[in-house]
Amino acid sequence: MPNELVLSIDAMGGDHAPDIVLDGVERAARKHQGVRFILHGAETQVQDLLRTRAAARQASRIVAAERAIAMDVKPSQALRQGKGSSLWNAVGSVADGEAHAVVSAGNTGAYMAIAMFRLRTMAGVHRPALAAMWPSMRGGKVAVLDVGANVQADAEQLVDFAIIGEAYHRAITGAAHPTVGLLNVGSEEQKGHEEIRAAARLIRESAVKLAFHGFVEGDDIAKGTVDVIVTDGFTGNIALKTAEGTARLVAGFLREALSSNLMSRIGALIAYPALRKLRDQMDPRNVNGAVFLGLNGLVVKSHGGTDGPGFAAAIDVAVQLARSEFRDEIARNIARLADSAAADASGQAAQ
Amino acid sequence: MPNELVLSIDAMGGDHAPDIVLDGVERAARKHQGVRFILHGAETQVQDLLRTRAAARQASRIVAAERAIAMDVKPSQALRQGKGSSLWNAVGSVADGEAHAVVSAGNTGAYMAIAMFRLRTMAGVHRPALAAMWPSMRGGKVAVLDVGANVQADAEQLVDFAIIGEAYHRAITGAAHPTVGLLNVGSEEQKGHEEIRAAARLIRESAVKLAFHGFVEGDDIAKGTVDVIVTDGFTGNIALKTAEGTARLVAGFLREALSSNLMSRIGALIAYPALRKLRDQMDPRNVNGAVFLGLNGLVVKSHGGTDGPGFAAAIDVAVQLARSEFRDEIARNIARLADSAAADASGQAAQ
Repeated sequence: MPNELVLSIDAMGGDHAPDIVLDGVERAARKHQGVRFILHGAETQVQDLLRTRAAARQASRIVAAERAIAMDVKPSQALRQGKGSSLWNAVGSVADGEAHAVVSAGNTGAYMAIAMFRLRTMAGVHRPALAAMWPSMRGGKVAVLDVGANVQADAEQLVDFAIIGEAYHRAITGAAHPTVGLLNVGSEEQKGHEEIRAAARLIRESAVKLAFHGFVEGDDIAKGTVDVIVTDGFTGNIALKTAEGTARLVAGFLREALSSNLMSRIGALIAYPALRKLRDQMDPRNVNGAVFLGLNGLVVKSHGGTDGPGFAAAIDVAVQLARSEFRDEIARNIARLADSAAADASGQAAQ
Repeated sequence: MPNELVLSIDAMGGDHAPDIVLDGVERAARKHQGVRFILHGAETQVQDLLRTRAAARQASRIVAAERAIAMDVKPSQALRQGKGSSLWNAVGSVADGEAHAVVSAGNTGAYMAIAMFRLRTMAGVHRPALAAMWPSMRGGKVAVLDVGANVQADAEQLVDFAIIGEAYHRAITGAAHPTVGLLNVGSEEQKGHEEIRAAARLIRESAVKLAFHGFVEGDDIAKGTVDVIVTDGFTGNIALKTAEGTARLVAGFLREALSSNLMSRIGALIAYPALRKLRDQMDPRNVNGAVFLGLNGLVVKSHGGTDGPGFAAAIDVAVQLARSEFRDEIARNIARLADSAAADASGQAAQ
């Protein structure tokens, strides 16, 4: 592994690849001095795009991939036919120790399957989870996981998610004891289905002493009631996309209101700098870059439909995490869990 | 059943009852001439509150209830111990044919259990669903169900929800063929878990010919991609509360931005009428009033934490639905489903 930071990029993943990917790399190359990129993709196409992108050209080398994985390919297909694709090779650069992290805007299911196959989950973790950061009223960001790596999660997986999510939040924010909540339809103990009540019990009894707040509700994401919100990938994905949709809806209503008559237009013009700051604050591109947690390698997922600045934001996440100790944090938490399970087992055997 | 419209009100349900309930009734009584109210609750307390609320006093009669059901009581407890409570009696007024609809801001689980026990589900409906209306970019409102009546739903229940949700939307909006979508983590056919893919197949094959759009994602709620969004009560509750939380978050960011400096304050002042319109548009009280669909009676649920105007909005929903033919709409759809099931069965028997 080289001393400098090396990122592996799937140049062909996403709805508007490779153009927006190269745009993102160009922005990131200007911003992060000393970061180098391995661009996996169609060689001539990527070379062409680099011609007008000097910073990216200087910081990158291209590794030719013979094909790309389409956005609608099933995970199982991706595993059977994905070898030699840009996504497969991009993950491979991390598996082979050539790169510190991989970033792709490609097919989520295929990405997850290939990353699990090539990197394996960390010892003690059942399934990886996709974690996203969401802004909150308290100012800080809330980590939400799983937002779509798995469509279902049993109680044990939810406990895993709590442990890796807490370590992830600590690594990113530096907070000593991030608080953790379990997403449910009510905050009372008897609420929700059996799986989620079992998960709450297991987290409370866990050897990894988390600052566990108990159940939280959907509106607690934006309130910032806790730092880490744990849920299954089905609910998490829908909650996150609902939040994004609502933010866009309100922004649309605001635009409409401010352009509805002459006075409102004048008012908006005068308040323009403040409104622009608000726009940046609510820009979904700024929260782009979800992370597959629980793998032996750093795997960042960009929205498939993002643009250049959005892809650059996903690269930012990869840079920040690669420079943090988040995998060590997770490994320490998981090891504590495994130790206590072993202690329990020997304790039971001795009886 | 009297000719005029009669609403049964649980005066004791909700975080701030009975005050906000009486505030809501006063507003509703002024707005809806000819609507009469039966107020179930603590007699002297309600009488006291009516003293300063002339319109409500004129339009109401009080039915004394000896107790109220607390917000944290389990559904099973509510059934065992709820008899004689304001919620029990309020539902009873509909069961006994004294009132056209019941409105409560009380404990959702208890409300659902008592309403099922006293009103029973409509023939052919497995479980009721709680339906809410949500604003969308297209201008119209989107019906989302189930938003919390059940914590789980199998494929057959999801089909029920599609059928009763479509009829509900048609009754409210007058649209001839509301479009229906099934909430999922992706729009492609292979996405999601088995239950939801089975539900999609069943809806497509159903004798009730719905304008079925297939799978939709979380951001499609605000986009208004379809008129009716079907999901299980766990996911729906979390999606709706996440949307509410996000709307408040953006509103908070906007307030902050507009008060950040002198120029922005001046701009906001000039644009004030437009911004006030926006505030009304995004006021969560305006979307208060979810409906338990699939029962032999009209049952409206207000947010537990609402205020007077919010409770009045829930009463508006009850008035609108009581004057519409929504239960006939649902009954017709369900009857078509039952007829075709019978035809299928006899067809199979003949082979």
